[in-house]
Amino acid sequence: MLGSDGFLDLPARSPKPRDSGLTHVIDKGMNLREIEGLFDTAGDYVDVVKLGWGTSYVTRNLEKKIALYRSFETPVVCGGTLFEAVVVRDKLDAYKRWLAEHRFSHVEISDGAVDIPRERKLELIAELARDFTVLSEVGSKDSDVVFAPYQWVAWLKEELQAGAWKVITEGREGGTAGIFRSDGEMRTGLLEEIAHELALDRIIFEAPTKSAQAWFVKHFGADVNLGNIPPEEVIPLETLRLGLRADTINEVLLRGERAPTA
Amino acid sequence: MLGSDGFLDLPARSPKPRDSGLTHVIDKGMNLREIEGLFDTAGDYVDVVKLGWGTSYVTRNLEKKIALYRSFETPVVCGGTLFEAVVVRDKLDAYKRWLAEHRFSHVEISDGAVDIPRERKLELIAELARDFTVLSEVGSKDSDVVFAPYQWVAWLKEELQAGAWKVITEGREGGTAGIFRSDGEMRTGLLEEIAHELALDRIIFEAPTKSAQAWFVKHFGADVNLGNIPPEEVIPLETLRLGLRADTINEVLLRGERAPTA
Amino acid sequence: MLGSDGFLDLPARSPKPRDSGLTHVIDKGMNLREIEGLFDTAGDYVDVVKLGWGTSYVTRNLEKKIALYRSFETPVVCGGTLFEAVVVRDKLDAYKRWLAEHRFSHVEISDGAVDIPRERKLELIAELARDFTVLSEVGSKDSDVVFAPYQWVAWLKEELQAGAWKVITEGREGGTAGIFRSDGEMRTGLLEEIAHELALDRIIFEAPTKSAQAWFVKHFGADVNLGNIPPEEVIPLETLRLGLRADTINEVLLRGERAPTA
Repeated sequence: MLGSDGFLDLPARSPKPRDSGLTHVIDKGMNLREIEGLFDTAGDYVDVVKLGWGTSYVTRNLEKKIALYRSFETPVVCGGTLFEAVVVRDKLDAYKRWLAEHRFSHVEISDGAVDIPRERKLELIAELARDFTVLSEVGSKDSDVVFAPYQWVAWLKEELQAGAWKVITEGREGGTAGIFRSDGEMRTGLLEEIAHELALDRIIFEAPTKSAQAWFVKHFGADVNLGNIPPEEVIPLETLRLGLRADTINEVLLRGERAPTA
Repeated sequence: MLGSDGFLDLPARSPKPRDSGLTHVIDKGMNLREIEGLFDTAGDYVDVVKLGWGTSYVTRNLEKKIALYRSFETPVVCGGTLFEAVVVRDKLDAYKRWLAEHRFSHVEISDGAVDIPRERKLELIAELARDFTVLSEVGSKDSDVVFAPYQWVAWLKEELQAGAWKVITEGREGGTAGIFRSDGEMRTGLLEEIAHELALDRIIFEAPTKSAQAWFVKHFGADVNLGNIPPEEVIPLETLRLGLRADTINEVLLRGERAPTA
Repeated sequence: MLGSDGFLDLPARSPKPRDSGLTHVIDKGMNLREIEGLFDTAGDYVDVVKLGWGTSYVTRNLEKKIALYRSFETPVVCGGTLFEAVVVRDKLDAYKRWLAEHRFSHVEISDGAVDIPRERKLELIAELARDFTVLSEVGSKDSDVVFAPYQWVAWLKEELQAGAWKVITEGREGGTAGIFRSDGEMRTGLLEEIAHELALDRIIFEAPTKSAQAWFVKHFGADVNLGNIPPEEVIPLETLRLGLRADTINEVLLRGERAPTA
């Protein structure tokens, strides 16, 4: 195993860069030292970093942050809400130039806060996929908006077909919308349906809370892709994947239910 | 705009030192590196720092902290509960000497945990206003204590008349008392009444939670003064003010409801 | 008092290394700079550090972390769930070697997630107590499992007799099991019973939330041992102990109810 002497003799996780078992971390305004500290301690488990919503636009030392993430060979992507603000302000070309100037390799496309016609979203995915690796997101940030499972499945599939590298299922920073009910409970029927219809390694499930992370590891295996992970939860999540926390020890370590998903 | 290339072409916020649109940050025991990191990343948006309740009394490196904040030209103030402990222990003169020795320019006066007669509180505001910039706070920290809007308004007004620079409406670190109900819900009728009766730029509303911050930005505009902001929420709050987060994007960016309040 | 000029003239807390009034801190993946910062600001109040559950197993720079804690003369101990994983994987000898190689002086023994027969647990406490200072923990991590007070008391007593230095009452990282109900409310009858039957200085009560910490300070005094304290809550907890926060100011400062427990 990474990081330790391995005296527990656990099955190994695949090393970075990996294609499944991704931990997608949300940075909502970290400073440079916090980023260095995160990689020093947990860098083996940070696969993608999202600069949450429009935070990149107001962060003073953005250039240095991006350079620092690049030095750790970890892709960084601006949140979908910044993309939606771009659409609202009709600044797509300026955004593309700005992304290129800052050497972003990835971009997130979403319509969780602002209405974008389905056709247009797919066009935008195809267009941006020519120059960037696209993560596209399905689901509303409004907890009152509830879509049926068949709709989720259709949208996730067509966004992958349009050129998205991975599709993200909305959960918000707090786990209160999209694949969650407003009280934080998970829409498990929806999730089972999605897992049944799509390849798990193409989906990143937003799972900001421990209970959600444990649910995903127990139901979809240690190598499920999880997103919106707060930086301080990267190490705790890795222990959930390995069965080294009470929430998953019985399923992963005792009953050996850890099944590769890729 | 500050901090970025401004490709979204948003209306500018006023620069520091500003008199409205203040972000009042709570430091409940930050270390020096965390403070440096905060200012490195978000210093443009930190207007006042409060050393929460009595934390300044037990922090080992207080001298260095104060010097560090001074180097960033950002006022720092001890929390009101320390002032109340001073009143309980009858140490006002010692406190004034201690504040002067540590070169504090600001002081907070409150009566949220300890009973101080109204007259006495106003006298103390007037007395301390001779040597310090006074922030005074209205509201109980006890979530069972509920005052009527007309009382809030009268008290806020008389504390300003007594010499307070700004008045703070109590919310606690968690958003559970004062202008909040114990379950975290906001007392919106009370807040509308306060906003109707006082100049908004004289009030700092304690708003530790994202939902409260979003409510204030949507109802009172981007330049509302907000307090008890955790350090890691300074960048997120700035995005709420600018409409770069889902919670306010429709009001601020789409419908252009961002109205200056000053 | 430590850390400040002492103008409030409060009764002093005993200095480190202390035997009661312990603050037992949970590290769930801190980096080296965060640890340095914690000790710089609050080192006087950090008595024991637990590397939560199995986090030590996946942390990249474990050697350096342990050396750093040692430089601050503060014992560090791996969480009980790692021990339980060791039992599940039948790796006790390997674990003991690993602990010795890493120069751990303390070890935690628990059965909160995995079934270990009572006799076996007591044997393990006795066996490990020959080479290590043992902290043993009572209580299930499953919030549906509720034991009667007389059982808690009997188990706590026999684990002390078996050789534990201190016994810990389970609360989890969030305060949702063991001495807490699943909704976070405290089992106060249970706690009063435990306090009545055992010496308070032999018990560490897990108390991750502010409301729980305030309850313990109010009911068992400033010198109660509290565990699972998040690093950023060390300074706030110290203010609760001293009556410098609204939650305890009336009991500790005003009515002088601070009673030594040792």
